[in-house]
Amino acid sequence: MSETSGRYRHRTADATVTLTLDGQPLADREVVLEQTRHKFLFGCTGFELVDHANGAAADPDAAARNADLWEGLFNFATLPFYWGRYEPVRGKPDTERLLKAARWFAERGHPVKGHPLAWHTVTADWLLDLDNEEIARAQVERIERDVSAFAGAIDMWDVINEVVIMPIFDKYDNGITRLCRDIGRIPMVRMVFDAARKANPTATLLLNDFDMTAAYECLVEGVLEAGIQIDALGLQSHMHQGYWGEEKTEAILDRFSRYGLPIHFTETTILSGEIMPAHIEDLNDHVVDSWPSTPEGEARQADEIERHYRTLLAHPSVEAVTYWGMNDAGMWLGAPGGFVGVDGTPKPSYHRLHHLVNEEWGTPSTTLATDAEGRLRFTGFLGDYTITAEGRRADVALVEPGEARVEAALG
Amino acid sequence: MSETSGRYRHRTADATVTLTLDGQPLADREVVLEQTRHKFLFGCTGFELVDHANGAAADPDAAARNADLWEGLFNFATLPFYWGRYEPVRGKPDTERLLKAARWFAERGHPVKGHPLAWHTVTADWLLDLDNEEIARAQVERIERDVSAFAGAIDMWDVINEVVIMPIFDKYDNGITRLCRDIGRIPMVRMVFDAARKANPTATLLLNDFDMTAAYECLVEGVLEAGIQIDALGLQSHMHQGYWGEEKTEAILDRFSRYGLPIHFTETTILSGEIMPAHIEDLNDHVVDSWPSTPEGEARQADEIERHYRTLLAHPSVEAVTYWGMNDAGMWLGAPGGFVGVDGTPKPSYHRLHHLVNEEWGTPSTTLATDAEGRLRFTGFLGDYTITAEGRRADVALVEPGEARVEAALG
Repeated sequence: MSETSGRYRHRTADATVTLTLDGQPLADREVVLEQTRHKFLFGCTGFELVDHANGAAADPDAAARNADLWEGLFNFATLPFYWGRYEPVRGKPDTERLLKAARWFAERGHPVKGHPLAWHTVTADWLLDLDNEEIARAQVERIERDVSAFAGAIDMWDVINEVVIMPIFDKYDNGITRLCRDIGRIPMVRMVFDAARKANPTATLLLNDFDMTAAYECLVEGVLEAGIQIDALGLQSHMHQGYWGEEKTEAILDRFSRYGLPIHFTETTILSGEIMPAHIEDLNDHVVDSWPSTPEGEARQADEIERHYRTLLAHPSVEAVTYWGMNDAGMWLGAPGGFVGVDGTPKPSYHRLHHLVNEEWGTPSTTLATDAEGRLRFTGFLGDYTITAEGRRADVALVEPGEARVEAALG
Repeated sequence: MSETSGRYRHRTADATVTLTLDGQPLADREVVLEQTRHKFLFGCTGFELVDHANGAAADPDAAARNADLWEGLFNFATLPFYWGRYEPVRGKPDTERLLKAARWFAERGHPVKGHPLAWHTVTADWLLDLDNEEIARAQVERIERDVSAFAGAIDMWDVINEVVIMPIFDKYDNGITRLCRDIGRIPMVRMVFDAARKANPTATLLLNDFDMTAAYECLVEGVLEAGIQIDALGLQSHMHQGYWGEEKTEAILDRFSRYGLPIHFTETTILSGEIMPAHIEDLNDHVVDSWPSTPEGEARQADEIERHYRTLLAHPSVEAVTYWGMNDAGMWLGAPGGFVGVDGTPKPSYHRLHHLVNEEWGTPSTTLATDAEGRLRFTGFLGDYTITAEGRRADVALVEPGEARVEAALG
């Protein structure tokens, strides 16, 4: 049974389910309770399953095993919409393949987030041939087109990424930096949010950044003062230079939760190998031939994963964590940051998080008894449950923390 | 004659003055031209002259020499309005003394800026006894009272200081941080600017910060998007950890000039002694028994002062530089950052800046000749000039760069 003590109280409900079978209370009977889904979004990139979802994996067996591993930990996927890769040739977007991938997740009940709709990195090179007004128009049209095309399959978007640095990014020339420098950060945010909102009014729209300083606070405050509706705030958390620790993480949560917005920890990476030196400012500057996962690193990673997820679940503002790559294979910068090694073997961190999500915080198949009035009492993490008895089944959802009184008919 | 070549072209005018005496053109005559005031604001703290202006200096002769030295370099003063010192007991503000000081400068033609009206540091301790609504009211009333009382003598204010860090400042509890954290940075800026604007609609109102990162950009963009009118942007430039150099200074100017606002370099400090170690984050943490000015340091300071002022004058957005203390005696942190040593002797930096301001960029008393139509042609830095001939005098002002055609009657 799940851990529901003080620290995670806001994640749980005390349920009283009145169970009926054919209209009669199912009194004094053993039933089996199981949580089938967390309300909390345990997310990960779904990039590694796009080929699988399209039936195009090079090694279908390995891909299927990978999909199983993925679903063992996660219930929320992020799919890639980097403009430069999604539409390298103007007018030829990679829609069908991504749509299949999004539907693969959606059909399994996993919400999908698209990442990102506007960003200065990996943006379309062909923007450089346009003037700023044309870039703005292309950006808006791209958002309207893609957000509309994926509505239903993808109803959550990182609308714009890394706006703090966007207008002063100086590694290379690109159309989005040009435009943002020209019109300013807030008009840029307004433009892309307006386009996304128009294309899918019910979507959850995020602002996402890696800058955890006062700069992002100032940006958020400016955006909110300007009346732009942000549905959730994305905080990137690549920890290639070492796990942040509880104190830093809690200080960040403390600062960014004061806007009253739901928080998504996005792009979380915790290494199971050597840590990147602290003096490196742009993580992209760290280029190494090989970056192995090590036994000591894997033990440390498992501990840090546990500490990090405990810290995040303990904070009421956090609604999602998106880990940035389940597999070491294909990971950004070649870093050993996955839950699964390059040979496809789950690391200790995989087992640790699996235990937390499915055992400590989840409710695996458990036999309980109803009382004389057919009532079943349990405390569990918010999410979806099934109750089975007599070969029949009822579905129950715990949506809000606190007391939950539910009636459920075995069907 | 002043240096007016390309780099400072925007600071100069090509004047054609038609000079008359008793209604007749003063043809083919020698006249004496002299610049009496720069339009550019060469500023400094005036803290060190407050006692002198009040006739209360402990050593009146030394104070008078100091005042002469001050006027040898500067034409613009900043006076202290730190709330905790200005009104340590609620309802007992230090108005009269500061008003005398402000008038002393104003009577000599030097505009005065008050610094600051709202800041979390050196703020009034008694705010801690109030709730946030009362703090807000006290802050607004303080601004309205003081800006009104000084109008005419002080028509320029650092309205609010260091807003980027204000709500997350964690060195000690204070009423302004509490309030700013509660209501947010932009509403805080709006509140204090509204109060200052109401009390003196024609005043020049500044936002001032030491944070030169994207955080200050984001704050400025948020404030401007929110429709708050900022008259000039203050960029602090304490260089206790070493002169920034042209490249960094120009990069900062490049980033902060894109809002189209006049820029004031405020709180400029360049040392003539040992440099503070780079690892110190809050300059206040560097506490030393003695921090002497050294011969090598003084030579270096003179060069860096020249480079810095040249960089700033070359940028068209910069309207003012405020040096943060002419005298080593009494300087913030005990740093040897003044133009005048503790014994009252001007350092090489004093002579260097004096030459730049008064010779290279100024027009010291110069004999010129009018042509057959009584016209006098010269190129000079913007500001005020006198022309004397026949024991009579005319005043001429060069206000805008470019061609200036002026008529002037010797009076």
